[in-house]
Amino acid sequence: MQWTKVLGLGLGAAALLGLGIILGHFAIPKKANSPAPQDLDLEILETVMGQLDAQRIRENLRELSREPHVASSPRDEDLVQLLLQRWKDPESGLDSAEASTYEVLLSFPSQEQPNVVDIVGPTGDIIHSCHRTEENVTGEQGGPDVVQPYAAYAPSGTPQGLLVYANRGAEEDFKELQTQGIKLEGTIALTRYGGVGRGAKAVNAAKHGVAGVLVYTDPADINDGLSSPNETFPNSWYLPPSGVERGSYYEYFGDPLTPYLPAVPSSFRLDLANVSGFPPIPTQPIGFQDARDLLCNLNGTLAPATWQGALGCGYRLGPGFRPDGDFPADSQVNVSVYNRLELRNSSNVLGIIRGAVEPGEPLLCSGCRSLPLPPPSPAPPTYLSFSSGSLPLYLWPDRYVLYGNHRDSWVHGAVDPSSGTAVLLELSRVLGTLLKKGTWRPRRSIVFASWGAEEFGLIGSTEFTEEFFNKLQERTVAYINVDISVFANATLRVQGTPPVQSVVFSATKEIRSPGPGDLSIYDNWIRYFNRSSPVYGLVPSLGSLGAGSDYASFIHFLGISSMDIAYTYDRSKTSARIYPTYHTAFDTFDYMDKFLDPGFSSHQAVAQTAGSVILRLSDSFFLPLKVSDYSETLRSFLQAAQQDLGISLGMHRPLVTAVEKFEADAAALGQRISTLQKGNPDPLQVRMLNDQLMLLERTFLNPRAFPEERYYSHVLWAPRTGSVATFPGLSNACSRARDTASGSEAWAEVQRQLSIVVTALEGAAATLRPVADL
Amino acid sequence: MQWTKVLGLGLGAAALLGLGIILGHFAIPKKANSPAPQDLDLEILETVMGQLDAQRIRENLRELSREPHVASSPRDEDLVQLLLQRWKDPESGLDSAEASTYEVLLSFPSQEQPNVVDIVGPTGDIIHSCHRTEENVTGEQGGPDVVQPYAAYAPSGTPQGLLVYANRGAEEDFKELQTQGIKLEGTIALTRYGGVGRGAKAVNAAKHGVAGVLVYTDPADINDGLSSPNETFPNSWYLPPSGVERGSYYEYFGDPLTPYLPAVPSSFRLDLANVSGFPPIPTQPIGFQDARDLLCNLNGTLAPATWQGALGCGYRLGPGFRPDGDFPADSQVNVSVYNRLELRNSSNVLGIIRGAVEPGEPLLCSGCRSLPLPPPSPAPPTYLSFSSGSLPLYLWPDRYVLYGNHRDSWVHGAVDPSSGTAVLLELSRVLGTLLKKGTWRPRRSIVFASWGAEEFGLIGSTEFTEEFFNKLQERTVAYINVDISVFANATLRVQGTPPVQSVVFSATKEIRSPGPGDLSIYDNWIRYFNRSSPVYGLVPSLGSLGAGSDYASFIHFLGISSMDIAYTYDRSKTSARIYPTYHTAFDTFDYMDKFLDPGFSSHQAVAQTAGSVILRLSDSFFLPLKVSDYSETLRSFLQAAQQDLGISLGMHRPLVTAVEKFEADAAALGQRISTLQKGNPDPLQVRMLNDQLMLLERTFLNPRAFPEERYYSHVLWAPRTGSVATFPGLSNACSRARDTASGSEAWAEVQRQLSIVVTALEGAAATLRPVADL
Repeated sequence: MQWTKVLGLGLGAAALLGLGIILGHFAIPKKANSPAPQDLDLEILETVMGQLDAQRIRENLRELSREPHVASSPRDEDLVQLLLQRWKDPESGLDSAEASTYEVLLSFPSQEQPNVVDIVGPTGDIIHSCHRTEENVTGEQGGPDVVQPYAAYAPSGTPQGLLVYANRGAEEDFKELQTQGIKLEGTIALTRYGGVGRGAKAVNAAKHGVAGVLVYTDPADINDGLSSPNETFPNSWYLPPSGVERGSYYEYFGDPLTPYLPAVPSSFRLDLANVSGFPPIPTQPIGFQDARDLLCNLNGTLAPATWQGALGCGYRLGPGFRPDGDFPADSQVNVSVYNRLELRNSSNVLGIIRGAVEPGEPLLCSGCRSLPLPPPSPAPPTYLSFSSGSLPLYLWPDRYVLYGNHRDSWVHGAVDPSSGTAVLLELSRVLGTLLKKGTWRPRRSIVFASWGAEEFGLIGSTEFTEEFFNKLQERTVAYINVDISVFANATLRVQGTPPVQSVVFSATKEIRSPGPGDLSIYDNWIRYFNRSSPVYGLVPSLGSLGAGSDYASFIHFLGISSMDIAYTYDRSKTSARIYPTYHTAFDTFDYMDKFLDPGFSSHQAVAQTAGSVILRLSDSFFLPLKVSDYSETLRSFLQAAQQDLGISLGMHRPLVTAVEKFEADAAALGQRISTLQKGNPDPLQVRMLNDQLMLLERTFLNPRAFPEERYYSHVLWAPRTGSVATFPGLSNACSRARDTASGSEAWAEVQRQLSIVVTALEGAAATLRPVADL
Repeated sequence: MQWTKVLGLGLGAAALLGLGIILGHFAIPKKANSPAPQDLDLEILETVMGQLDAQRIRENLRELSREPHVASSPRDEDLVQLLLQRWKDPESGLDSAEASTYEVLLSFPSQEQPNVVDIVGPTGDIIHSCHRTEENVTGEQGGPDVVQPYAAYAPSGTPQGLLVYANRGAEEDFKELQTQGIKLEGTIALTRYGGVGRGAKAVNAAKHGVAGVLVYTDPADINDGLSSPNETFPNSWYLPPSGVERGSYYEYFGDPLTPYLPAVPSSFRLDLANVSGFPPIPTQPIGFQDARDLLCNLNGTLAPATWQGALGCGYRLGPGFRPDGDFPADSQVNVSVYNRLELRNSSNVLGIIRGAVEPGEPLLCSGCRSLPLPPPSPAPPTYLSFSSGSLPLYLWPDRYVLYGNHRDSWVHGAVDPSSGTAVLLELSRVLGTLLKKGTWRPRRSIVFASWGAEEFGLIGSTEFTEEFFNKLQERTVAYINVDISVFANATLRVQGTPPVQSVVFSATKEIRSPGPGDLSIYDNWIRYFNRSSPVYGLVPSLGSLGAGSDYASFIHFLGISSMDIAYTYDRSKTSARIYPTYHTAFDTFDYMDKFLDPGFSSHQAVAQTAGSVILRLSDSFFLPLKVSDYSETLRSFLQAAQQDLGISLGMHRPLVTAVEKFEADAAALGQRISTLQKGNPDPLQVRMLNDQLMLLERTFLNPRAFPEERYYSHVLWAPRTGSVATFPGLSNACSRARDTASGSEAWAEVQRQLSIVVTALEGAAATLRPVADL
């Protein structure tokens, strides 16, 4: 070939190559540079579901409940170390873990001077004493670490007087006794658990001059009527006659000395004289075997039918003992309480899986999971460096999914709370293992928490929210609580605010239910708890969140969408208030293993449900919080308010308008989400939208709405005295106004509460509208 | 050529072309797909600075101040329409504009029964009357739309008694009168403006049994001592003898009937009997010409030297008139006030420039400015479709920059507030024109606001923050207030929280100062207000934000970083409390045009400063809020607390630690920002970081810290009674505790306030740390 030809061909070839390069570079959009954002990965989800292991949960539970571990005890601190060790494990641990300690006011019985309940005869001799300890039926009810039954925060004192029976210790119970002509001044009131809160019994009693309170658990309320030793644990799941429910009798929650402040050493502490919420008079819980001795010997009128129980005698009101009974008629009851308040160190343990990017300190992503690629692209592996360094795009570690349970128990606490902690440890193990292997890292950060001193009043979690109020409120997507994970093995039970409903439904539809049949957890659940939704038809019904566990400060104080997950009873099979050995020394590993969840499949079901919810909340590109599900709640609250609160239609009008606005704005937001999901949305658009979803719950907070209700700021879920499910502030104000003249201060408060709700709903709706509108 | 050769060449060519395409597509990173994010564009900034026109501001002012326009008057409503028309102009308007109306409680003098101040002789005859109107010196002081001088919210009543002189009406002034043995019961107290707030004079007086209060402006305080007609307006900028300062005497701010609730028609309104904060006794302001008649005829002891003024006589204390004066010695003063409370409609006007993306409703960006391209790339114009549709990446319309001023005046209000509104209109015109031309659209949304009824107590802005509390708190980057834009033409004056200091400095260094010389606004400013910063050396000093204008609810109630911008006096040339015709009928266009800012170059300087600040806040990729500038404030508050509050070193320790933590965390965040800025950071990383900067101010809010201080929740800027600049809650608690025994409740409150500050600082620092840490 001629050199010119060669040159020509060469030049032509170079030109063609060059042209190709130019075309390739500029004319073909480079999809690979726009990696699809990380989203929920069904394969990872399936892996996690498969790896959550019932046997490992069982082993966790055995270890956790091996010894009594009341808050701040040495064994409680041992478990702090156990958690730290697990969460720092190089093979299955988290990114980081640490314990943080608060100095909090707890209450314990004196070890030197045990609390006693005696019957004192006319001559002043003790003629009968109640049991000071529970019967050691399995060898686990004895020993120095078993805290003997007491009413935490009840004051010490030794009141003595005639015994009366006051049913559940509600205000109307004491009124009934008065109506019956019984002089309550100076008496000892025997009450049974249930109806009203623990502390309320003593508060109500003291108002009527009662000097001391006894509280017992009636077999009718806890044992389906059964009470003999051979019908109770260890022969069945029922409470033995000597079993006594311990508990906190403090009215509020959080450390009593540091309301609204974290209980760090430097914080201001109230003078004890200024603490409110403790029971005003000595109070002591007893077992039903002792209660029978007292109650079946009472004198006086037969108590009303609804006051009767299953102790095998007709309950009388007193005062004092009947002449033909076991004790002299004028015997008195002495309640000697020697509880002590003590400042103790109690720890939370926090473990973190960081979301995939840490701004400012680029995470070297060698261990990260490869991002899923857009379908058609044979992409080169350079996309990770699309942005600076090796940062994958589109991930936000400044959003936290919180998952927690308390660690402290009253005695061994196998059910409460170790069944939840056993699940927590298994979940963190499975996720930690994927993390350490480099298989997975969530989009958003996941925080695992083991709270301290919950039994004394949700103390660890409350102090945590006080210390990190702003940070948590700005960034927390949701709080998931699993306290007692298994009450029984019939069905799932979830309490939560409306935005979490859909993510729980999505999760539970994909998990097989334990037990016979081939049902999903969802399909099993709907058989036990259901309601007819105007939007969805028949669906499982979620309960609402009170203050029964550590979610309280998250929802009520911080306004974070929260939920509480457990497996529970077939209510057609038992009427027990709660599992019978609750807060007793009989709540042990064997109790769980034999009676509540043999095989631990319900534990596994809870772990899978919580695990799926965590993954959905932390990995989904679009946050799976369906805020429009609040519309149904608001509509039903509105209807209830219209029907039951006795306020005029004119007064309701702004409320109707506000609810309608919320419905319309929430629906329109739902539409925008659907439209966006069909496209290939910009991550920043999704972030803006997710912020609207995350922050919606916050818009219902008003710290000035209920100044007398400590921590309660959520205008939809604050405590409500009436039984009708509606706006609590409005409902409470109405019930106070009902018997006053129109124009009264009480009716003004109704109007004010109405405006508070309307302003909150209007404000909430405004945050759902397109963000560039005002 | 043989066909095989042709085929071979063809195939080779195709292969080469193909290879080229593949190489071009995959082997060369496509920078064009990663457009540099929109950032502050210096060219746009220069354009805006150049287009802000002094003459147009002058014309705006002429129109705005043409008629009196007290809140809710017909002319006030006309100006609402004027604003709407400007903001909806197709050539120079904003994206949208609307008025929103609140129904609020205002107070007006009766038109039928004017307020009067008379001297009543011993026989009961009126022997002298004070002027009911200001002298009509320019033809603008008369007419039905001039609201005659009154003390808004002072109750009606006709008290009569001997006159006393009570200096400024401070608590110590009345104590001094008591010390002097003067019986105050039933007297009329003559006081002068200044020292304490308007309403406080009546509150303090009433505590001592005073029956009515008069308030005047002393020429010593406002006129540099000058008082004759030929020395005052229209012959100079000084207040004429008949001039009377009107004003609100309400103690709080916001609509008095709807604290914490928006004053929409449906909202709950307090019963008038339950409203607090109104003056307890009739009160009336008068001019110094009338005050001279009263004061120079008083009997009694000569008042202390600091109580003397410039009325040309020795001020005596009273009670009553001297025998040798113009009135009979036992004459009394009658103050007849006929003010009426009225529910009135008052409007805010809001105009919006939307940030560049509206999620869910893609903005067709045909009119958008082209994004700046990364330097080396000959990029094809496809980058706008990098994401879905035609959305430019990296912009956040869910972040708002708010800029506002009130619209209502007392009379013509040329200075107060129309000088600010004239600037507002010019700024919105220049930005609106760029917008409508398609030259520019900001990254973040800009909201312009014209507030109603500020003069009565910041009502329009407060109601707005109550209505949109959550939305504003979640999304507002900063609030910029320009009320009176020009007090005088000597220097810039800025009040604001530390995070805004740096953006104001940046802006003012780039703008030429009006007046002689070739100084920047910054360099001129530093000559008048400066301080020595441990970090920066000599810098202009920013004042702190009280509650003097509409920024109050933004900073104190919502915790939004705020600033107030104006041009003001050379303090070496006048000691006037404020510009002399403040709140009088002499505050007219000519007054401004002749005396305060001839040529309107100071107006232009304020417009340029505010405009540059707005552009920097709305367009900068990294938010120009320098949170680490809070460190200097905290350190100085800490030192002042240690030196001046008289609390022990042990008590300070946690505060010291908290300040140190804040300093360290803020500095580390600054480092991370610097590092990121050097790279090519991911927009989501920048968004996370910007959220930390935006929300820092929020972390200082504690709605439970000062329950008695309505709206004040900012633990660093709440009202402080002491003169030392330090933590207000701590300072106030210390001054109450100082005279009590250790162990008192007052000392417990000191401890509590200390913990509130420590918790806020620790919480604030926590939000500055890397977001994936807890």
